[in-house]
Amino acid sequence: MFGRLNHVGVATPSIVRAREHYAGLFGTAAVGEPFDLAEQGVRVCFVDAENTQIELIEPLDDASPVAGFLARNPAGGQHHLCFEVGDLDAAIAQATAAGARVLGSPRIGAHGTRIVFLHPRDMGGVLVELMEAPDGGH
Amino acid sequence: MFGRLNHVGVATPSIVRAREHYAGLFGTAAVGEPFDLAEQGVRVCFVDAENTQIELIEPLDDASPVAGFLARNPAGGQHHLCFEVGDLDAAIAQATAAGARVLGSPRIGAHGTRIVFLHPRDMGGVLVELMEAPDGGH
Repeated sequence: MFGRLNHVGVATPSIVRAREHYAGLFGTAAVGEPFDLAEQGVRVCFVDAENTQIELIEPLDDASPVAGFLARNPAGGQHHLCFEVGDLDAAIAQATAAGARVLGSPRIGAHGTRIVFLHPRDMGGVLVELMEAPDGGH
Repeated sequence: MFGRLNHVGVATPSIVRAREHYAGLFGTAAVGEPFDLAEQGVRVCFVDAENTQIELIEPLDDASPVAGFLARNPAGGQHHLCFEVGDLDAAIAQATAAGARVLGSPRIGAHGTRIVFLHPRDMGGVLVELMEAPDGGH
């Protein structure tokens, strides 16, 4: 079963401007430092809301899947929802049995644990990331 | 300042099918009963994730703003993010001072407290709902 909402992914054409925007909404202390996820072709930055995080995502180049999203949504917007699971392999088996297509193979995500994406067409139009909970959850 | 993420709004063409889908992901006990918000032209249903909720939203008629979203996204998808605030009037003043346009006047939302929406063009492409926290918290 899906667990807590780890983060909401929000695509942005400028992580620098988005950080300023979110610092104004959540306070400067809530906004982390950006870092690259080169394997996924994105630069990300996490913003702390009280009970979850916003992951700001800027593509590193035009080959990034997020670049396609921004071509359709130039101002940026909600990109994906990431839910924690206790056992990623079991969650993939559950999702596959329910007819959801898994996009690619599990890889290491922004929090250092294994992640995988599920096809939005099988998830009511929502791109869903499943993430093995760090240290069994928090 | 913005507080906790009260819910993620997810538009769906069929709240009946979406409920079944989410019951399979989060468990039957996590899925509430649908109810109408006639004033907003939608039928909604809340799904409990561990730390927040998903609000499934189906338009009641073609005049609903959500009907336009579904015309562009027939399978449904992420519609808005709702953040709790302690004082809605102060939050509106803060958002307006930061250049965000407020959509309409405050009204009573799905949780019985005052809510308002901020224009996505001023919020990095994200439609944001601000909601006065129920009973000063959750």
